[in-house]
Amino acid sequence: MTTEEEREEARRYAVEQLEATGVVLTDEERASIEVTDFGLGRLRETGLQLLVYVNTDRHCAKELVLYPGQTCAEHRHPPFEGTPGKEETFRCRRGVVHLFVDGEPTPRPGCTPPPGVYTVAHEIVLRPGEQYTIPPDTLHWFRAGADGAVVSEFSTASRDELDVFTDPDVRRLPA
Amino acid sequence: MTTEEEREEARRYAVEQLEATGVVLTDEERASIEVTDFGLGRLRETGLQLLVYVNTDRHCAKELVLYPGQTCAEHRHPPFEGTPGKEETFRCRRGVVHLFVDGEPTPRPGCTPPPGVYTVAHEIVLRPGEQYTIPPDTLHWFRAGADGAVVSEFSTASRDELDVFTDPDVRRLPA
Repeated sequence: MTTEEEREEARRYAVEQLEATGVVLTDEERASIEVTDFGLGRLRETGLQLLVYVNTDRHCAKELVLYPGQTCAEHRHPPFEGTPGKEETFRCRRGVVHLFVDGEPTPRPGCTPPPGVYTVAHEIVLRPGEQYTIPPDTLHWFRAGADGAVVSEFSTASRDELDVFTDPDVRRLPA
Repeated sequence: MTTEEEREEARRYAVEQLEATGVVLTDEERASIEVTDFGLGRLRETGLQLLVYVNTDRHCAKELVLYPGQTCAEHRHPPFEGTPGKEETFRCRRGVVHLFVDGEPTPRPGCTPPPGVYTVAHEIVLRPGEQYTIPPDTLHWFRAGADGAVVSEFSTASRDELDVFTDPDVRRLPA
């Protein structure tokens, strides 16, 4: 399992990356950064660091920080409480993000998934200043390039605990 | 009226401020920055520069840039199409923003409004890393401090043309 020391290190890395991107954080925010290894215990391979700015029942904004080559496991945001599910826009701020969504598989993608279950293979490469909107209930996963990445996420209400992962071994819990 | 030259200058200023904040923009985004003088023809006093990242029928994200001392006129976002109206979070990225909302008037506010009609006087001061969520259909206005300001806005769907301004002389059109 991911140790408390690894979590602390991941939080420090996230703060450093966010500050290098020009993001100003409060002390409270620095301490609130969430680290998840998706229950797999291989944080730097499959994991994510998140800072939630706001999450009401109508709108949400987060910063996502990835280690070099780190992957957010394939998932979708299903409908809930009469809504179609979370609709989200990823905007790359730093580094490169390889985002994969449903559609024609990209012949020579910029990266491959780590061990686990991955089924969508249409690649969208996001560099700083580039963004992509993912419709609700749509499978997607993403992996940072060799320098890691910072991604701003703008969305409707986020309910992480409802996320549906393709890999039955994945658990969306803090590391 | 605000001249085309002033609009161009305001766009250049907005780009410069956003880039100083660490925001990476595409060329298309640089050219798409909206400049509004609220129909008053006094852009640097009452006006706003905006970059819309995304605005679907469910979520929206923008960057707002203000000149030193520039004010966004008092307004509210009314209900539309069965929704309660736009709910928005302002997060200050650079400079200082004096945000005024309904509530107990602040005895010695950090700034006063410019000429025009202003009725709410409860001040919330936002410095970099600080944020505030404004409920739908709630009157508010804001003014930048002496160094100008950059504010990220995260929200539900934005329909600027429906905004209701307190001052009957205000028109929400590009300058």
